[in-house]
Amino acid sequence: MTEPSSSRASDLPPDDFLELPADEQVSVLMGASTTKRRTLMRSLALDDAADVLQAAPEKQRAELLDLLADVARREVSALLAYSEDIAGGLMDPRFLRLRPDLSADEALSYVRRQAQDAVAMLDHGYVLDADQRLLGVVSLVRLLSSSGGKTVQELMDRTPLSVNTNTDQEVVSQIFRDHDLTTLPVIDDDGRMKGVVTVDDIVDVVDEEATEDMQKVGGLSALDRPYLATTVTDMIRKRSGWLMLLFVGEMLTATAMGWFEGQIARAVVLALFVPLIISSGGNAGSQATTLVIRAMALGELATRDLLTVIRREMFIGLVLGTVLAAIGGARILLWQQLFDSYGTHAFALAATVSVALVGVVLWGTVMGSVLPFLLRAIKLDPATASAPFVATLVDVTGLIIYFTVAGVILEGTLL
Amino acid sequence: MTEPSSSRASDLPPDDFLELPADEQVSVLMGASTTKRRTLMRSLALDDAADVLQAAPEKQRAELLDLLADVARREVSALLAYSEDIAGGLMDPRFLRLRPDLSADEALSYVRRQAQDAVAMLDHGYVLDADQRLLGVVSLVRLLSSSGGKTVQELMDRTPLSVNTNTDQEVVSQIFRDHDLTTLPVIDDDGRMKGVVTVDDIVDVVDEEATEDMQKVGGLSALDRPYLATTVTDMIRKRSGWLMLLFVGEMLTATAMGWFEGQIARAVVLALFVPLIISSGGNAGSQATTLVIRAMALGELATRDLLTVIRREMFIGLVLGTVLAAIGGARILLWQQLFDSYGTHAFALAATVSVALVGVVLWGTVMGSVLPFLLRAIKLDPATASAPFVATLVDVTGLIIYFTVAGVILEGTLL
Repeated sequence: MTEPSSSRASDLPPDDFLELPADEQVSVLMGASTTKRRTLMRSLALDDAADVLQAAPEKQRAELLDLLADVARREVSALLAYSEDIAGGLMDPRFLRLRPDLSADEALSYVRRQAQDAVAMLDHGYVLDADQRLLGVVSLVRLLSSSGGKTVQELMDRTPLSVNTNTDQEVVSQIFRDHDLTTLPVIDDDGRMKGVVTVDDIVDVVDEEATEDMQKVGGLSALDRPYLATTVTDMIRKRSGWLMLLFVGEMLTATAMGWFEGQIARAVVLALFVPLIISSGGNAGSQATTLVIRAMALGELATRDLLTVIRREMFIGLVLGTVLAAIGGARILLWQQLFDSYGTHAFALAATVSVALVGVVLWGTVMGSVLPFLLRAIKLDPATASAPFVATLVDVTGLIIYFTVAGVILEGTLL
Repeated sequence: MTEPSSSRASDLPPDDFLELPADEQVSVLMGASTTKRRTLMRSLALDDAADVLQAAPEKQRAELLDLLADVARREVSALLAYSEDIAGGLMDPRFLRLRPDLSADEALSYVRRQAQDAVAMLDHGYVLDADQRLLGVVSLVRLLSSSGGKTVQELMDRTPLSVNTNTDQEVVSQIFRDHDLTTLPVIDDDGRMKGVVTVDDIVDVVDEEATEDMQKVGGLSALDRPYLATTVTDMIRKRSGWLMLLFVGEMLTATAMGWFEGQIARAVVLALFVPLIISSGGNAGSQATTLVIRAMALGELATRDLLTVIRREMFIGLVLGTVLAAIGGARILLWQQLFDSYGTHAFALAATVSVALVGVVLWGTVMGSVLPFLLRAIKLDPATASAPFVATLVDVTGLIIYFTVAGVILEGTLL
């Protein structure tokens, strides 16, 4: 995935070129001769040509655009008006246009003539009125199998789904997913049909959205480019922001620990279990937030589900906390039996660690599941509630829970 | 997304039924009358019917299968031989078969007759010899636009991509992604063409794989079902396994802290920075592992890239560690100025925390990026190197780094 050298670029067969991501296509174009460059530019589908122009350096754009044939140039220029992540930026402006009063046979012979233009996904025709308003959709199969005399109007589906040019790609892919579509017409604000989004582009969108979400959940800004294609400088920029923010948040743990410095001085043994307890809360929270964020991205969880989620997660957190508390308590009592590690107060210590674990795991689970809802409510991306973000929140509160429990249970004995 | 009641089930229009996931289709079928059940079963595409049967309780399968027409029943039974996550389980066994010696016009009139069968994605015909071996692929558009006399043989693409029935769905979706395909023929071990995978099923596969990976990265077993459709018992089972494993691993932190109990007793202030230091390593590791796991899933990173990744991540880890070290050191010196928090040894403490941070963040970053490679080398899923897993590993080693650094820097002063 390194930048192709110019010698390789000029040898590249057009088929391989078509499969490269837009930014690599730009590198190949830059390294190619003018003739070759024209051939390659003209081999691109119009929506892909627009992507290439968007990926190209500002000053090269006009030159690349000029390589296209007249009609294509006009259509690509129109596409450039749309940002890449909305329906207008995804659509192909060439589609099969039919008039409602054509007969099926006339429509087919029209298809036959249009077919040379390599219209993308020519398995549906779009029936438009004189104002380019979408009246219906008819599949090529339907046209082929109908008795010749019927009109397009009689054969078409009159209630096709469509999206606006400004619809976000995440919403567009949700519609493809929910309705198992292969194509979806795109309509502008004046009701005119402007193009068609095809399912093969949606595979890329779905991948892209999942990558973005996963990177956010992992606690960094979305990279927007493949791992090896991202420069080290860019990588540091995208990772250091969140890392510094989390670090500053986590500094509160030093403050919180400071409040309990007296307790730790009297019973150093309490400090030994700090990492175990806070990380358990963090892990439980990380599970919960990952589940909720992904379910939201797939459209499985709406705001009205919040109470259901809280109820479920409280119960789950309680069970998970109890399981860990049992293991943690058993570990302390066993070490006491085997190595006499904790002296006369082993039982009180086991009780402290166990009770704190139930509290911290329950708290982490509920926080992890509720935070994405809160973020969405204030119009932020739920995926901002990354696993490290939840862990940091739970670390600070977990310490307070732990040392408060210790204060109550160990008062008069260890403390 | 709760289970549809049987009254709603019988009212459900077939179109909505077709869009439900397989397990919900089963619930609807179970709640419907026999007549309605037959209609619904027969409305399913054959690959979807096979999914429904696989989702149905064992004892209901034969009964549901019997509702299908003869030919469909045979084809669905054949599909049931394949597991759901390989090409054989994804494919539709009905596709447009053409003989090589047909003329384009003959082929079209054959398509016209076959079209009533609602053959999925009828935009390509598959040219087979007498042994059902795939000779080539020809698009309907090509047939329509050719001059009538040419044969299918002359028009077809002779080197179509194909996959074996046993090819894993992750590999299949990678091929769709790399080559921007809409359909892909599936061939059995004897070289016979058995069906076609269509891109609309690939959108579901891509979503499914991303969800699985994300859940694994979040530190739990993949759910396989939507959040609200997963029972609480199942949820606890899928989450408690990893949580207990991580807990047992994290118990090593108590052991490691135990080794340094003497240090902590002499300088309680050291304990205050434990959560800050180990969580920074965990966060840096979580970022790195998330990036590498996702890049591997998208086919961006091969084993030969390991050294490049290590080189990059060592540099990145060093820079990120230095940034956090600067903030951490400044925080200690500032608190010393403002509140005299750390007495005469503030500078030595700041040095200890800063040096430890560089070491821990560097270590976390490198571990997080290398672990997925190691797991893949021993044939495990790279996503097993979940963020919490890396954090746990880094917690234990981070403590050792921190207290070792403290031992060296503070010897003779605080310690």
